[in-house]
Amino acid sequence: MSTNKRKIVNDPVYGFIHIYHDTIFDLIEHPWFQRLRRIRQLGLTHMVYPGAMHTRFQHALGAMHLMNQAIEVIRSKGHEITEREAEAANIAILLHDIGHGPFSHALEYSLIESFTHEHLSLQIMHQLNEQMNGRLQTAIEIFTHQYPKKFLTQMVSGQLDMDRLDYLRRDSFFTGVSEGVIGSDRIIKMLNVVNDHLVVEAKGIYSIEKFLIARRLMYWQVYLHKTVLSAENLMVNILKRAKYLALQGEQLFATPALQFFLTRRFNSKNYENKSEEMAEILQNFLLLDDSDILSAIKVWQHHPDKVLSMLCQQMNNRRLFRIELHSKPIDPQRIMELRKRVAQKYAFTDEEAEYFVFEGTVWSDTYNIVDDRISILYNDGHLVDIAEASDMLNIQVLSKIVKKYTLCYPKNL
Amino acid sequence: MSTNKRKIVNDPVYGFIHIYHDTIFDLIEHPWFQRLRRIRQLGLTHMVYPGAMHTRFQHALGAMHLMNQAIEVIRSKGHEITEREAEAANIAILLHDIGHGPFSHALEYSLIESFTHEHLSLQIMHQLNEQMNGRLQTAIEIFTHQYPKKFLTQMVSGQLDMDRLDYLRRDSFFTGVSEGVIGSDRIIKMLNVVNDHLVVEAKGIYSIEKFLIARRLMYWQVYLHKTVLSAENLMVNILKRAKYLALQGEQLFATPALQFFLTRRFNSKNYENKSEEMAEILQNFLLLDDSDILSAIKVWQHHPDKVLSMLCQQMNNRRLFRIELHSKPIDPQRIMELRKRVAQKYAFTDEEAEYFVFEGTVWSDTYNIVDDRISILYNDGHLVDIAEASDMLNIQVLSKIVKKYTLCYPKNL
Amino acid sequence: MSTNKRKIVNDPVYGFIHIYHDTIFDLIEHPWFQRLRRIRQLGLTHMVYPGAMHTRFQHALGAMHLMNQAIEVIRSKGHEITEREAEAANIAILLHDIGHGPFSHALEYSLIESFTHEHLSLQIMHQLNEQMNGRLQTAIEIFTHQYPKKFLTQMVSGQLDMDRLDYLRRDSFFTGVSEGVIGSDRIIKMLNVVNDHLVVEAKGIYSIEKFLIARRLMYWQVYLHKTVLSAENLMVNILKRAKYLALQGEQLFATPALQFFLTRRFNSKNYENKSEEMAEILQNFLLLDDSDILSAIKVWQHHPDKVLSMLCQQMNNRRLFRIELHSKPIDPQRIMELRKRVAQKYAFTDEEAEYFVFEGTVWSDTYNIVDDRISILYNDGHLVDIAEASDMLNIQVLSKIVKKYTLCYPKNL
Amino acid sequence: MSTNKRKIVNDPVYGFIHIYHDTIFDLIEHPWFQRLRRIRQLGLTHMVYPGAMHTRFQHALGAMHLMNQAIEVIRSKGHEITEREAEAANIAILLHDIGHGPFSHALEYSLIESFTHEHLSLQIMHQLNEQMNGRLQTAIEIFTHQYPKKFLTQMVSGQLDMDRLDYLRRDSFFTGVSEGVIGSDRIIKMLNVVNDHLVVEAKGIYSIEKFLIARRLMYWQVYLHKTVLSAENLMVNILKRAKYLALQGEQLFATPALQFFLTRRFNSKNYENKSEEMAEILQNFLLLDDSDILSAIKVWQHHPDKVLSMLCQQMNNRRLFRIELHSKPIDPQRIMELRKRVAQKYAFTDEEAEYFVFEGTVWSDTYNIVDDRISILYNDGHLVDIAEASDMLNIQVLSKIVKKYTLCYPKNL
Repeated sequence: MSTNKRKIVNDPVYGFIHIYHDTIFDLIEHPWFQRLRRIRQLGLTHMVYPGAMHTRFQHALGAMHLMNQAIEVIRSKGHEITEREAEAANIAILLHDIGHGPFSHALEYSLIESFTHEHLSLQIMHQLNEQMNGRLQTAIEIFTHQYPKKFLTQMVSGQLDMDRLDYLRRDSFFTGVSEGVIGSDRIIKMLNVVNDHLVVEAKGIYSIEKFLIARRLMYWQVYLHKTVLSAENLMVNILKRAKYLALQGEQLFATPALQFFLTRRFNSKNYENKSEEMAEILQNFLLLDDSDILSAIKVWQHHPDKVLSMLCQQMNNRRLFRIELHSKPIDPQRIMELRKRVAQKYAFTDEEAEYFVFEGTVWSDTYNIVDDRISILYNDGHLVDIAEASDMLNIQVLSKIVKKYTLCYPKNL
Repeated sequence: MSTNKRKIVNDPVYGFIHIYHDTIFDLIEHPWFQRLRRIRQLGLTHMVYPGAMHTRFQHALGAMHLMNQAIEVIRSKGHEITEREAEAANIAILLHDIGHGPFSHALEYSLIESFTHEHLSLQIMHQLNEQMNGRLQTAIEIFTHQYPKKFLTQMVSGQLDMDRLDYLRRDSFFTGVSEGVIGSDRIIKMLNVVNDHLVVEAKGIYSIEKFLIARRLMYWQVYLHKTVLSAENLMVNILKRAKYLALQGEQLFATPALQFFLTRRFNSKNYENKSEEMAEILQNFLLLDDSDILSAIKVWQHHPDKVLSMLCQQMNNRRLFRIELHSKPIDPQRIMELRKRVAQKYAFTDEEAEYFVFEGTVWSDTYNIVDDRISILYNDGHLVDIAEASDMLNIQVLSKIVKKYTLCYPKNL
Repeated sequence: MSTNKRKIVNDPVYGFIHIYHDTIFDLIEHPWFQRLRRIRQLGLTHMVYPGAMHTRFQHALGAMHLMNQAIEVIRSKGHEITEREAEAANIAILLHDIGHGPFSHALEYSLIESFTHEHLSLQIMHQLNEQMNGRLQTAIEIFTHQYPKKFLTQMVSGQLDMDRLDYLRRDSFFTGVSEGVIGSDRIIKMLNVVNDHLVVEAKGIYSIEKFLIARRLMYWQVYLHKTVLSAENLMVNILKRAKYLALQGEQLFATPALQFFLTRRFNSKNYENKSEEMAEILQNFLLLDDSDILSAIKVWQHHPDKVLSMLCQQMNNRRLFRIELHSKPIDPQRIMELRKRVAQKYAFTDEEAEYFVFEGTVWSDTYNIVDDRISILYNDGHLVDIAEASDMLNIQVLSKIVKKYTLCYPKNL
Repeated sequence: MSTNKRKIVNDPVYGFIHIYHDTIFDLIEHPWFQRLRRIRQLGLTHMVYPGAMHTRFQHALGAMHLMNQAIEVIRSKGHEITEREAEAANIAILLHDIGHGPFSHALEYSLIESFTHEHLSLQIMHQLNEQMNGRLQTAIEIFTHQYPKKFLTQMVSGQLDMDRLDYLRRDSFFTGVSEGVIGSDRIIKMLNVVNDHLVVEAKGIYSIEKFLIARRLMYWQVYLHKTVLSAENLMVNILKRAKYLALQGEQLFATPALQFFLTRRFNSKNYENKSEEMAEILQNFLLLDDSDILSAIKVWQHHPDKVLSMLCQQMNNRRLFRIELHSKPIDPQRIMELRKRVAQKYAFTDEEAEYFVFEGTVWSDTYNIVDDRISILYNDGHLVDIAEASDMLNIQVLSKIVKKYTLCYPKNL
């Protein structure tokens, strides 16, 4: 690549991250990618773990760094990955999360309920591909499972993809939950390819077990931490209420991009990918970041709608709901009763009280056996699924989706 | 303290941070302190070091953590620090930066040029003290150098205060500039008190040298990194331009709090501390955080004023000015010429071109011998200033203020 | 304690380790404890992980450090631990491994086959107690499960004792097997006491799962690493051969202490604890360390006995046996055949060939449910065994003893 | 290289160390190199920093790892380093310390006073070169400053050689003196070559300053730590006394290799490099390691010579001399007097008392300007010595040799 594009980025997790390809450099410079600097990887998790301020920008670079390590390992074991394929794999992993908006999960449950971030990522990649004269073609094929060398896709999106390897380590680093640290170096060293599929050499089996357990731990200790769930639910309700008011014609302070999503109803089913409306949606979406939401919430603290202002004050001053996790659905009677008390205390209608007392569900599956599998490669060449290979056996359990029911209500009720 | 206030905070730097005092817990819960969650410690440094997203909230807790370690060490050496004093020292260090706004240095050079953050910190502490019925009295005495045990003040603000010990380590951790790591543990272990002043025991001398060098390194490698200075200058010019336009009556998107500062001229000399106007200023100031600025800049990208929109696009997409550092003032001729080229290229007036070509100064003093001194305590009881005690001698040099002249202009000129 | 005994020890794992009690200081200074400086914690593991040179001395101090943390946590939750008890718990953990000799496991299988290190530890503690006028009385009661506060014993020897918490973290640190890192801080923070027994608060459950998995990983990746097992088996055979020769009257270079064990047959059943013979054994045992064995092996490289010299050259130059692990016993036919080839190649008798081709067994149990249990304390006060509490379920599997059969033989056969 | 020689070594400092060349693999397997596994890098430093048990084996591999990083960086900047040169640089750095014996400095002052380890390293390299049919030829040219590309020699032995970069980081890691950590990654990234000499790019200047300061700190905090010096002096006196007795015909327990050095007088001037006597010396030297010395000292504790036995008991039980450091020579009167008291107390002759009361000197030079220089490369291509380039200036001071006078005597005198 041209020398002035040779770049090294400082990263507290890996030390230095190298950018090896021209196209990669251009993509990182692109405003749509720079925008990831302003979107936190873990949304509101910093309410519990104050260190968790890291961004999707850092994560994308980190995953790319691991991709380059993995490519080097696989090449060193005699499997060809051409320079073009390496660049494409870099692009695919770099952009795998480009479709995330601010507070992504909350947003998907409120403002833009009809688009998933996967769908948006692909739309954005297509647009970038046009802008860059098809330089993203192979990357898109990898991303959409159409490229013949399946292992390239698996490194972008699979049980052991570079996404997971980076986010577990990075989230563990920034939250300070040291138990989540995974030996990404060791796992990557054990990667190999058989019949174009990614496998793990047998002596890496304990590292894989450890990885699955660490992932599980991060789920319950960080991603699904009660207080984090409570904060995210609060965010959902704020955005729902704001949209409800905006659709009623109520004036709300918001950046134009946020205004766009507050005042419009969506129904993804109807959008042709390249329609004008889709283009307008994307254009606005790509202007959104954490600051649009956070600045609005601060202003809405003083909005005349009491539901909205109360919710926003709670968020701003970290007065979160009490949250309960149960393994069975919440008794509707109990919810009713709690809502009644809220309605009474604050002179709310029943409908308004629903913003303060509500149930939900969360679930976690650490190893989803349907999706994709981790195959273990033995010295004699035969392959065994990790679920069988591990004498720990509980991978069957890990693959079970754990579903929990949540109940939120004000602390001082 | 009451058990439900006993709290542990996860911190990636120290592991666990304990909150030992009721008043501390109440202060951390206070909206004015929670606001620090939304203000980054290092402003725009993440433009160079993407990991540097940590907040003033984390730093304040970290400095408090070190304060508690230092108190324990000093007590263990036979010096009395009462529980009341310990709590006051905790409060003073926790609030030492409460007067910082978003992008603090840039703000002080543009929007609120007449208030220093030190002044604001004290104002806010007085208001909190009123709200909390005088519980901050001793903390304020410590903060304002009025408390007889001088060493308590020195631990809050001095050559080896807990502020510096934390920020060097924390900034080093999050930027990934591992050379900035200081042995705060070892330095704290070596602290002692003589005649109510903080001293360092002789065998800590190498750690102190290392601390001063690490600080110097962090100055040039991080705090005064060319690209960081360039980004901060860009921020100053954006806010200056926006304020200029706002004062002209131009409509600008902004949160009400930011609007307040954009549309008002200040002159600190005239404000009585407890005046109504000061109260209004504080009230608005305490609503500002990074999101007000960041969301406005995104909207201003599309503002009709070409100067403002261009500057904001540069910031948003990280198209920073080229910056030169010189040890002598920049030749005015050269500046003139560069401005002429900018004016020509973009059809700007001379005045407008000044936003794109400008000079400035930066300086650094690592060990300011006027301010405060680090005294080394020898085994026989005599004290020597570090500048003499170190056979490295260069502390004289370290204490010299290094002044550099900066010149910024567009890269593609 | 007297000031001149206040001590801080530098430790790369924890930073600083404090010595809080006079008796502890005196014990550490004792020649029998100083001897642990010369005994590596992991014997021959450095053959695979060159960093694993750390000693039993460091581990004992580290475990004591964690003990003090645990004591502080438990006290802070309202349970009394007197100063005398704290000191005793410190002593008990400090001395829990004092009965280990050099290459402990190998030694127990060869030179001193009739004594376990647990037995020797207790003997030594009794002798120290006499020397120190009964100052170890409570510690011995704790060590021997006789002290009423059972949790003190459990912290010395139990599922979550400070021994394990330190060695997993320390061995992980020095080997560089980062996946073995456990969150000892977090586990210790979650400790509590119910009915004088150690329990873990419910929110610590994921950390416990992680701890059990990390332990399992360390077993297979480090403690039972094939090459490590091979090296240890080689050591056993060297010592067996040397003892065989010595008992035949053959002259062997050895320090007097090693000579003592080479030339004597033991049968533990017959020793009265305080007999003269036991005293002589202890006196010699306490002079042994790694250097006695290592220096002898180097000299024995040139011994006329070909079996001994070949084995010693193998050890010295790291020409280890090939080792196979199987889940079923090795076919005797295969062993016979391999021995025949060795006998032929080197002109050995069948008996001599057994030193070069041999089988063995290894086993691992990560969570032994018979021994001791980890109880989880829920917020409502009820206790559940971790095996039930974890929805991961596989703790049943973890508690199963995994037995493997090993076969060793020369690589170049 | 052949696949079965492709090797990865676990290292707690760098993670994984790769072995890239066949010859390197063969050298590491060589008994003379394996012997470095049994020689601690920092001799008796573990008496103060118990973690400092790491070996010369680990250090040699670590320095080789950095060499490979540096080669990659320099190649990436357009300078040719052929595969043969890369292998040779690997060999040279791997073997640069092969001539170290156990407790090297102490040994050079007692048993083998006429050979330096540099001289021995070269002798051994020549012998290995013969054994390996000239495969070390280029490495020897690099090692002996005869290879035209001077920068290769500078990376093996110079101000910024891989030796120093590794040992500072490694010693810092294992001692736990975190302030000694240097940013070896960053320094290596800044390396470049001008006119076949190693230079550092200008933006690496702060890292170099930091490196020099860290080195200085490690000198005084670790390498020349008073207690370490005291232990080394004790070792010197033990070996001197033992040799004195042995030369008198006194029987002393020792391995044959140690016996060889105890019973022989050397005078380096007289040895032809390839003489038979030199060959015999080397043969014995290459059998020596820490265990020979340590096991002998334990046995000598009970030797009838009271001087020897007392010194050995002191070493074994860590009853070290009190040591004083002065900037002026010790008053002979004081030494005389102290010796008199020792002689009286223990019924020693004056000569015997000299083993217990003695003076010495230590010195440190962090940046030796005579030796070799660090040149800073500015963007415009001109080179400036670091001593001028640093506005810290004190490098002049750093380059001054600091000499201190030591006085040792028994603590309980």
